[in-house]
Parts: sequence; structure tokens; C-alpha cells
Amino acid sequence: MYTKICEGLGIEFPIFAFSHCRDVVVAVSKAGGLGVLGAGFMNAEQLKEELDWIESHIDGKPYAVDVVIPQNYVGRDEPDLSEQELEDKLWKMVPQAHLDAAEKLMRDHGVPEWPEDGRPKILGWTMQTVMPCIKEALTRPNCKAIVNALGTPPEHVINMVKESGRMIGALCGKKKQAVQHKNAGLDFVVAQGGEGGGHTPEVGSVVLWPEIIDAVHPMPVLAAGGIGNGRQMLAAMSMGAAGVWTGSLWLTVEEAHAQPAQKNTLLNATVNDTVRTTSWTGKGARVLRNEWTDFWDNKENLDPLPMPLHGLVTADAMRRTETYAGSGNCQNVAINICGQVIGQINEIESCRGVVTRLLTQYLDALENVNALMPDY
Amino acid sequence: MYTKICEGLGIEFPIFAFSHCRDVVVAVSKAGGLGVLGAGFMNAEQLKEELDWIESHIDGKPYAVDVVIPQNYVGRDEPDLSEQELEDKLWKMVPQAHLDAAEKLMRDHGVPEWPEDGRPKILGWTMQTVMPCIKEALTRPNCKAIVNALGTPPEHVINMVKESGRMIGALCGKKKQAVQHKNAGLDFVVAQGGEGGGHTPEVGSVVLWPEIIDAVHPMPVLAAGGIGNGRQMLAAMSMGAAGVWTGSLWLTVEEAHAQPAQKNTLLNATVNDTVRTTSWTGKGARVLRNEWTDFWDNKENLDPLPMPLHGLVTADAMRRTETYAGSGNCQNVAINICGQVIGQINEIESCRGVVTRLLTQYLDALENVNALMPDY
Repeated sequence: MYTKICEGLGIEFPIFAFSHCRDVVVAVSKAGGLGVLGAGFMNAEQLKEELDWIESHIDGKPYAVDVVIPQNYVGRDEPDLSEQELEDKLWKMVPQAHLDAAEKLMRDHGVPEWPEDGRPKILGWTMQTVMPCIKEALTRPNCKAIVNALGTPPEHVINMVKESGRMIGALCGKKKQAVQHKNAGLDFVVAQGGEGGGHTPEVGSVVLWPEIIDAVHPMPVLAAGGIGNGRQMLAAMSMGAAGVWTGSLWLTVEEAHAQPAQKNTLLNATVNDTVRTTSWTGKGARVLRNEWTDFWDNKENLDPLPMPLHGLVTADAMRRTETYAGSGNCQNVAINICGQVIGQINEIESCRGVVTRLLTQYLDALENVNALMPDY
Repeated sequence: MYTKICEGLGIEFPIFAFSHCRDVVVAVSKAGGLGVLGAGFMNAEQLKEELDWIESHIDGKPYAVDVVIPQNYVGRDEPDLSEQELEDKLWKMVPQAHLDAAEKLMRDHGVPEWPEDGRPKILGWTMQTVMPCIKEALTRPNCKAIVNALGTPPEHVINMVKESGRMIGALCGKKKQAVQHKNAGLDFVVAQGGEGGGHTPEVGSVVLWPEIIDAVHPMPVLAAGGIGNGRQMLAAMSMGAAGVWTGSLWLTVEEAHAQPAQKNTLLNATVNDTVRTTSWTGKGARVLRNEWTDFWDNKENLDPLPMPLHGLVTADAMRRTETYAGSGNCQNVAINICGQVIGQINEIESCRGVVTRLLTQYLDALENVNALMPDY
């Protein structure tokens, strides 16, 4: 399944692994795929530390960095504020009632307090916070691509990445967005169907993938949303995808940083246990359904805030439930970002094991489908 | 793509075409697939008329009949009532407020009155109404299979169909249902992912299909939900499906009975224009979003009734908006049952043209995916 994008990036197999864990990024790239570090929760200082580690462990293999440059967000019209000024301004816009509601959920489920004083930092989801991250990534020799998780990147970002000799791509959940990406000059798009985790559309992968592949042809399209085995990968490649973009697959691998309690929650989840909710960021995203999502999805309770304000409400809950995943009933209110395919991930594997499994299943499935054509 | 189920049914290609139109059933079966007549809206007398026509036009080719035997419905505990008694009883349970709300929607959008007196009949969705339909179908020599659209059929129905030498299958949207179907002794299941039209689950096809295929192996699984071209068909077969079950594909073909105005609405719809709603039958089903669905989906308005009561509210709207599809603003309140794949169906084709297109696209896609394996 060697495609043009493999050649462009210097990878063996078009398997893209999105992960917030540097160990996963390194292990997948070493196994022949492309590790993609999700930097959306990091500021430039944290990203620098992660990239230092990756560069010193990845043995010259390529990897990518995924950032979040949303097109519409509260604070977008304040480009001249410093990061700190923007953060202060955004925090003032968060109603106390929302913080109190989140805190009550934490208390009711026995989630331990955060040990330090201080509010969480804003996520890297504003121009002020994301630009230093991109600049940091572009200093790294083995970082071969930048991917934007939300919307078409601004022209100056596209130019900056391309001039550095790297590829730039972006996710999309609608044909219109994909065409915007193409017109803006991106090198590839990631088409994520509704099955996928995180920010995700309502249209399912089987319908969305070929629609976007046709709309931006011959631009390479990576298929995302619902890929957990090699048969699903073959399905995507059959429809003309240039590769697969996977996320949920890597949440429970040996190399992933999550606490055992969080991994167990994910391993035990079924395909019916996720929900598309605004309770994580204020924008429709798929996560495991639990009492956190039920609270904010209940129309009788407070409405989630717009991006990136609701992310400030969520950030404290996330750091506490992730760090103390096994304490109290943390799992009842943890924010477990994952797609429906989490239901078919039931055991801990190594990254290399997952890559090998995908390839084996792919080849078996291809053999089986060819066998349906006796004269082929 | 010849599979065991093709052999069992005597068809050339595992393309199953669900349609309420007898002309579509005949044309698809003659083109080498299997036409499946949706009898859910018919009583036995109407079905008899349709089957007379099919049998005299189908040139000995096989076809199937799809019925609706829901497992849970209001009136299920009244097996001894006659069809008329059950109908009278159910009509009495429909609040006048619901009928008034539906009538107001019709009036507001200029939908003409129904010319005759009389409430719509209850749908064939109760044991009283569906059993005569099944018995009617089993008298027909070319009807080779019965399919249940909702739930596992009762044991006596399964036995009756099997003893007649026919196959019996059923739709499912969850692994648990598929396993129930298998344990009950059905011959095949149709696994419908969330993209599909009509009653449909939330889990997308790419995740649901392989889960169900593995759960009931080696029982044949037909993949439904999102199949409109041969690449999507190859995707399904790649994951191990024994064939594809398609519905939306046949709504706008030359042979379909719908009025031009309704076909135009469907041809112009995009993948983003459907919604999963309870406003058709009271149970989650995918249809085109419009002012009918918006009204009932709005939590501030009346809640839809449980099955089959809401179907009684809807039945009058359906017959009026279908018959007078081009009058007033009928399309604003018409119930257009279809899946997300409707967005890729943009021109009127013949049934034979659709079958030929699916096969051509399938072979092209298979060639393309094999070409990614240089040594294959």
C-alpha cells in the first residue's frame, strides 16, 4: 500500500498515528508509519521539551506535529494582546457558575484537588499560543509535516511551513472545508468521518471519504474516523484514500502515557459508549459518554461555552482526572476523547504490534476480496 | 464478487436493492441483483396486488420481501384483537393535539387535503397486520427470501419461512441484535450503520460492519448504510461482507414511482441534509431534515409518540406529501426516508445503469487497490 504521500514523507506505510504521547510518536515512526504529536494541549515550552526527546530517540525517522488553529474563536479579534493578556481576558469571560458546576462534578465523584495553585493555562488554540509552537516544530530536522486539526491555516502559516521544506495538511469533516484546504495550497487533507474521536462531523466515514477524495482529486486524502484494523484500512484505501489517520488505536498501547485506570476504561468501552458532545470544548466532539458529558448535554443544565472558553472549564477536570485516574470515581467524569472504534480495542498492544497487525489484516483482507473474483 | 449468498438465492451479484416500488424490484432482479420489496406500508391486499405484478414481470428471477415485525410496540400485548379492533384501539391512543399539530404543519405549507374520508390504515407493523403479508409472500414461487426490518422474527415465523424452502434474514444495528438473529437460526443478517436511511443506529458503518461480521461468522452479513457506488461496495466486501444492501440508491431511479418534485428534492440533497429523528415513527430513523423533522425534534414542542402510534400521525402527512409532492410547499414537510449517501446521488439513472455502474466502479477500485501492492 505504498502511495505518493509515503514517498513525500519518507515512510514505509501510509499509517498516520495521532497521539499526545511522544513515546507513541517515536514507536510508530520506527515501525514504518508516521507518528503525529498532538500539540494542542501544549504551549511552546512544553512542546520544546517533547520535541527534544523525540528528536533524540527517533533515529532519524520522520514524524509530524498536529496543532490547533481554529478559524473562529472568542479572542480571535485581539491579535495584539500578548499570550498572558489574552489568557487573562478569556478567564474573565468564563462565568463563575460554569466553574462551580465543574467543581461540583469533580467533588461529587471524589476527584482529588490539583496540588498546585493556579488556573490551567489556555490551550494552544489561539494564534498567540499556536504560532510559537509551529515555529518550534519548524526548527526540528525530523519533523516533516505540520497538520492543523481545525480549519484551513492562514496563508502566512502555509507559506512558512512550505518554505521550510515541510508538508502541511489539515483535517476536515465537510467537502467545503476540503476544497478550501486545496485552494489554499495544502499538501494533503485528513477527512474525518463522524465515527472519529475529538472534533468530528455527523457524516459517516463511508459517505464522507469518497466524497472528499473526489472533491480534491488528485490531492492525497488520509481517511480518519473508524480505523482500528487492517480491514478498515483496506476499506479506506479501496475508496481511494492515500493513507489512514488513526487516533483511538494508540490510546491504550503499551507506550501510551495514560494511567492504567484510564486505559481500562477505554479497553472496556463498547462501540455504543461514545457520544458527540459539546461538553469538552464547546464544539461537537466525540468522547466516551459519562456523567461529565451527561451533565453538560442536559438541556436543563448550563450550556457549554464557545471555544476556547469551555476548554478553560474543562482543562482543570482533564488534568485532575488524568493524573488521578484511579482515584475516587474519576472515570465517571473523565474526558476520554476517542472514536466509536474504541469498542474493538480490547487489549494492550505495542505500537509495533499494532502496525504489524494492520498490515497483516490488510493483506489477508485483500487476498480474500481478490478471491471473490475467480478470474482475477 | 460472487459469494455464497449469491448461490443460495440464485443471483449473479450480491447487490440487494430495497425499494417500495415493484418496478425497481423487477428491474434490479433482472439486472442480476436482488430486488427487495419493502412491504412495511402495505396490508396483505395491497401486497397481493404488487406481488401479482412482480411475478408476471420478473421472468423467473428471484426477489425478496421485506416486512416489519417490531419486537416492542404499543398493542403487542393484544394478540387476540382483530386487525380492525387493534386499529381502532390504537387510533384512540393518539392524542388529538398530535393530529392537530400535524394538520397545522400540512396547512402552513400548503399541502392539499386528502380527497377521501377516512384515516390512514395502520401500517403493517403489528403481528396482526404483518402475518397475512408474510403468508401472502410465501405463496409466490420467485420470492426467495423474507427479511425483517426490525428485530429478530418470532420462532414460528422463522420456521414457517424456512419450511417453505426460503431464506430468512433481518436487519440489525447492534452486535447484540446480530447475535440474537444468529442464535434464532436466521440465514443472514443485514448490518446497517448510522449513515443509512430509515431506522438506523448511531454507530457508523466502518465500525459496525466488521464488528457484526466477526460476531456472527461464518453467517453471511450484508452491509447497509452508505453504499452508493462501487468503491463503497468494495469497502464493504473488503471488510468481509457477503454483499451490500442498498436503499437510497433506488429512490430516484427512472423506475421509481416518486413524483418528480420528490425526486428533485432527493437529487438536490447533500450529505449534510439528513437527520436522525424520531419524527417519522417514534423510533430513531434517518430522513431528510425539513420543517416536519424540525418541529417534532424541537424539545419545546410535542414529543413524538411511541411506535406504532406516531406512524399513525405521520401516515396522513406521508400520503399527502407524496401524492401532491409538487403542490404548495409539500417538500418542506415531506418525509423523505434516506441515508447520508443521498448526497452523492445527483442524477436519474436506470436500475440497470446503477447495477452496471456499481460493478464497473468496483472493478476499477479493486484494480487500483491492487496496484498499490507492486508485488501482488
